[in-house]
Amino acid sequence: MRNLLLVPALLLGLLATAQPQSQLNLMPTPSSVQTGTGQLLIDRSFSVAVTGSHDASLDRGIQSFMAQLSAETGILFRSKPDAAKPALTIHADHGRQQIQKLGEDESYELTITASGAALTAPTPLGVVHGLQTFLQLVQASTNGFAVPVVTIKDQPRFPWRGLLIDVSRHFIPIDVMKRNLDGMAAVKMNVLHWHLSDDQGFRVESRQFPKLHGMGSEGLYYTQDQIRDFISYAHDRGIRVIPEFDMPGHSGSWFAGYPELASNPGTYNFEPGGPDSVTDPTQEATYKFLDKFIGEMAKLFPDAYFHIGGDEVNGKHWDANPKIQAFIHAHGMKNNQDLQAYFNQRLQKILTKYHKTMVGWDEILHPDLPKTIVVQSWRGQESLAAAARQGYSGLLSFGYYLDLMWPAARHYAVDPMSGAASSLGPEEKSRILGGEACMWAEWITPENIDSHIWPRNAVVAERLWSPQETKDVDSMYARLDAVSLHLERLGLTHRSAKLHMLHRMAGTAEITALRLLADVVEPIKDYTRWDDSKGPIDFHAPLNRLIDAVYPESDVARRFRDLVQKYVQSGFKDQAAETQIKTLLVAWRDNDAKLKPLLGQSFLLQEAVPLSENLAAVAGAGLQSLDYLDISQPSPDSWRTQQLTLLDQAKTRKADLLLMVVAPIQQLVEASGNPKKR
Amino acid sequence: MRNLLLVPALLLGLLATAQPQSQLNLMPTPSSVQTGTGQLLIDRSFSVAVTGSHDASLDRGIQSFMAQLSAETGILFRSKPDAAKPALTIHADHGRQQIQKLGEDESYELTITASGAALTAPTPLGVVHGLQTFLQLVQASTNGFAVPVVTIKDQPRFPWRGLLIDVSRHFIPIDVMKRNLDGMAAVKMNVLHWHLSDDQGFRVESRQFPKLHGMGSEGLYYTQDQIRDFISYAHDRGIRVIPEFDMPGHSGSWFAGYPELASNPGTYNFEPGGPDSVTDPTQEATYKFLDKFIGEMAKLFPDAYFHIGGDEVNGKHWDANPKIQAFIHAHGMKNNQDLQAYFNQRLQKILTKYHKTMVGWDEILHPDLPKTIVVQSWRGQESLAAAARQGYSGLLSFGYYLDLMWPAARHYAVDPMSGAASSLGPEEKSRILGGEACMWAEWITPENIDSHIWPRNAVVAERLWSPQETKDVDSMYARLDAVSLHLERLGLTHRSAKLHMLHRMAGTAEITALRLLADVVEPIKDYTRWDDSKGPIDFHAPLNRLIDAVYPESDVARRFRDLVQKYVQSGFKDQAAETQIKTLLVAWRDNDAKLKPLLGQSFLLQEAVPLSENLAAVAGAGLQSLDYLDISQPSPDSWRTQQLTLLDQAKTRKADLLLMVVAPIQQLVEASGNPKKR
Repeated sequence: MRNLLLVPALLLGLLATAQPQSQLNLMPTPSSVQTGTGQLLIDRSFSVAVTGSHDASLDRGIQSFMAQLSAETGILFRSKPDAAKPALTIHADHGRQQIQKLGEDESYELTITASGAALTAPTPLGVVHGLQTFLQLVQASTNGFAVPVVTIKDQPRFPWRGLLIDVSRHFIPIDVMKRNLDGMAAVKMNVLHWHLSDDQGFRVESRQFPKLHGMGSEGLYYTQDQIRDFISYAHDRGIRVIPEFDMPGHSGSWFAGYPELASNPGTYNFEPGGPDSVTDPTQEATYKFLDKFIGEMAKLFPDAYFHIGGDEVNGKHWDANPKIQAFIHAHGMKNNQDLQAYFNQRLQKILTKYHKTMVGWDEILHPDLPKTIVVQSWRGQESLAAAARQGYSGLLSFGYYLDLMWPAARHYAVDPMSGAASSLGPEEKSRILGGEACMWAEWITPENIDSHIWPRNAVVAERLWSPQETKDVDSMYARLDAVSLHLERLGLTHRSAKLHMLHRMAGTAEITALRLLADVVEPIKDYTRWDDSKGPIDFHAPLNRLIDAVYPESDVARRFRDLVQKYVQSGFKDQAAETQIKTLLVAWRDNDAKLKPLLGQSFLLQEAVPLSENLAAVAGAGLQSLDYLDISQPSPDSWRTQQLTLLDQAKTRKADLLLMVVAPIQQLVEASGNPKKR
Repeated sequence: MRNLLLVPALLLGLLATAQPQSQLNLMPTPSSVQTGTGQLLIDRSFSVAVTGSHDASLDRGIQSFMAQLSAETGILFRSKPDAAKPALTIHADHGRQQIQKLGEDESYELTITASGAALTAPTPLGVVHGLQTFLQLVQASTNGFAVPVVTIKDQPRFPWRGLLIDVSRHFIPIDVMKRNLDGMAAVKMNVLHWHLSDDQGFRVESRQFPKLHGMGSEGLYYTQDQIRDFISYAHDRGIRVIPEFDMPGHSGSWFAGYPELASNPGTYNFEPGGPDSVTDPTQEATYKFLDKFIGEMAKLFPDAYFHIGGDEVNGKHWDANPKIQAFIHAHGMKNNQDLQAYFNQRLQKILTKYHKTMVGWDEILHPDLPKTIVVQSWRGQESLAAAARQGYSGLLSFGYYLDLMWPAARHYAVDPMSGAASSLGPEEKSRILGGEACMWAEWITPENIDSHIWPRNAVVAERLWSPQETKDVDSMYARLDAVSLHLERLGLTHRSAKLHMLHRMAGTAEITALRLLADVVEPIKDYTRWDDSKGPIDFHAPLNRLIDAVYPESDVARRFRDLVQKYVQSGFKDQAAETQIKTLLVAWRDNDAKLKPLLGQSFLLQEAVPLSENLAAVAGAGLQSLDYLDISQPSPDSWRTQQLTLLDQAKTRKADLLLMVVAPIQQLVEASGNPKKR
């Protein structure tokens, strides 16, 4: 009945980067840090005193800081501590804006001595950021929890540091959104760009047009009360909330309730919507509708900016509608682009009426629009520079798309001022306001959104906050490890969700061997998961496969690659590195036999069989290469050719995943052909 | 700057119990299960139809079932599925009581065929339980998620199956309470006994006496709105909520606001309260107060039962107060016990006025009280039997104290009908209503409460629900593994919290070696963590030590013990078992060297140094024993004496923890003295 099975296996989360205690695990890196000696102990007598300006929002901020400090330390702070000798004094010179403004002063100074800490800032906004820096400094020392003696002067490089979350394609409940606000605050991002409507769903309660959410959301939307509460939660954390209602394209969900707005009116089944749906910009009724709708939303969302989307307008239905073509002709327009510009101009007037500044994607850029609008570049740095040259303010999102499954280092390398922007003049450069990471939700659920945003989003946050010269990738990854643990303590689930999902696939079986495989794969990159020739994506499909569970970036593979690099660069002489490489390769080689029975049991794991077999095979090739290198004898050409064929095959996509240790093993195989060269 | 450290280590969570697919991982075991062949697939078309009686509560129950099924499978079920062909039909014959009653019919029948499932029950209460059984049947098969073909007829053995949660000593926020209701529902417990007041805190908003929560809770209490919402949440899950206001002892927190109620009136600083505080039962003002207070609470808590505590009345202040002694004398009472009985009689009349039945601990048992009261036995099974003999209804809690850190098997072995109760007659037996697990919160925080309740509480739930003959411990542990994973998917954090806490102790360091140690220790047992001679417990002390993070029961140690048993019983011939034992011993022996640097870095880990050293030493002794056994040569007596001294020392408490692998290693050492005997 009971089958006691012992599976000794090697754990591979073990290529650990040990941080020397002297490193400050701050992300984003502050603009100025002066370290000292000694530390300020944090014990249960720790308390905060506020002098100078403060308001209810700051009081809530301090409360939430104390709760986070408690999570960080496990200390149960008293609700009414002895305020006689506060460990941290906070002073803000004056109040902050009731509705947070772009460019509001976010700077702060944090001075920690062995006897106390002082946080000063022009406004409570800087205090909010400074408190997060304080939290990141907390560490378990030999004497107790403590923050090091340090003086930090800090302010952001860019005033607009955002994260877009698409809640249309898959709905993300408000509590999941809130914990992501906590994460944003932890890395000092200050704009939540809420992609609230698209073909797949309209996610806001509209009292003016209740069929918008009533027929366009399958019941999954935010009430206006929830939104107000969310905006206040964001405000407490120094985050502006900017709504996006994408139009005239990406608006299929609107037409479920209001088909008369569409360019090809008819009956709209909400699903699938289809990528071709587009608003009819030629009828006055459209603008009447939008005036009323935007009037309602302008009140609900207090921020001065309002995002109207404007991307990827598919002209098919405009082309096919003779009335629309006649309109284009009658108004002397050249093409659909002109028609969209006309639409945007009309929209822009409505927004102005409601005191909103228009933000839109690349495609809205058109000389007919006023210079006050903000252009968000997703198609490349070229278009950002072009906008700046033409006098428009801009935001960079190209390079920050988290759904492309790029490694953190690749996002980190993208700088809003690099590429085409580097040749801009100072005034033009000042028009680049910052950027936004984007979490598009084609393949995202409430369960795995955290692991697709975090920790990678922290490096985009650093790029937008820290001085431009903050570029060291090794330091970035080391600090990212620390910030990742910190974020999980704040309530994000980017680490724990993976375990849950693997357990679900494995049933009651032990998952060590499965984790070992999961730790060395990554999802395929860019937009290769779906091929449009297969038809529209099925947004109700379960996202419970291995690809949905694993991290976009494999830390184990990254560290293995570094290790092989080190070994090769030592001329194959670094014995410690070789031993470590061997240990890993043996574990990988032997894993398939352990994993096979499990893979056969669960339909969700069957697709991983070739991956597991390939891992064993390539690890074998790696081990043989090391044998040749050990005896300094070149491996036979025929053997190498054979192995390289194997490796080429193992590099290809399996179960929509990539085996990330193949490339470094290939390096070993190739090196084995010439062991003495170095 | 960056120190790339590779720590290959053996993972020890690996003594896995692989479940054959045929085993149904149901806990509690239903009273009748007929398995069949085949399965019912669960895909995204899965939907539920209700015929017969249903109400808003059941509708919410089904909604929550679908959400749990989604968590179990990762399938994104449509909010409005095609109801034409429901996979599961539900039928309740008639409605359930608006206020759930003791003894209400909870039975259900669940029939699953390859083409559909039917759940029928006399009332929606049975449906609630049947849906949880359905969820526990879900597994990932080779074809998809599925439930097996089966017919289950089920009803509880006892009508009162409870869990007490003490929220006074450490406050537990309402969301943590709610997820524990989810856990209780999953294992079919039906009473949440809410220990709402004690010396350390009064946790309910009282509008009649606002100084109760205002001065007696440090701001940590539930509002009446929260309580109403919580009770409705519990009702949806088939759970009654019974409040306990402990009196006349354990009531220090009341006196912070109302010192005139105390037997030694004076100024009460809320803290520390002290164990001697006791209500003055001799003044009429006390009963006026209690009448008004109970009147308020009787409305807030609709259940027919009301718990007045009544335990551990310390007579010191009664003895010391001449007025009270005069009262005792004047009323012809013999002692303090009689005075408490007088108090309880007065209380009982107030409760009757508000249509409540009194529940209290052992000590309230007194011939002067009517037979309608319910006695909760915490001091032994004797007192439960005694109560039943005297005509009182009773509940067993002795043996179910989760704060004693006992292994699941020990709780599992305690049966309300065993011991003294086994000699009761049928009518007397019928007075035993069931039992309650108790989570007293001296050492519990919101962070670690789940891991102290779960999964062990599930075995108490099984004891109280399943047929008496359900006793197989191996089967229990195997199913407990499955239910533990299931509970974590429902939102409980008993597994993940440990990881968080270990990471907090370790800072940014890798925690594999720390986990290996944490996995083989258990907290010291019973009430040995604190010695009252040290003074009162400091309830504001951080609970962030290793003892607070580890599980009350070590699965690894349990499995290792079984493995050694198997090896010894084979006459040292079971080679597979020996290899497994060796692998573990080597890992333990080598762990200290890996762990030492980390233990030195963090003040929270320094106390674990002797534990880690002892683990290495005893593992070494185990390995040497195996060497002797391998060569079938008796180990020298002197060597064994030396090792046994070492083992004796290693058994003792270190850092308030016990090394749980010492005893089986001792078995090996002793066996090595006579290797050929068997």
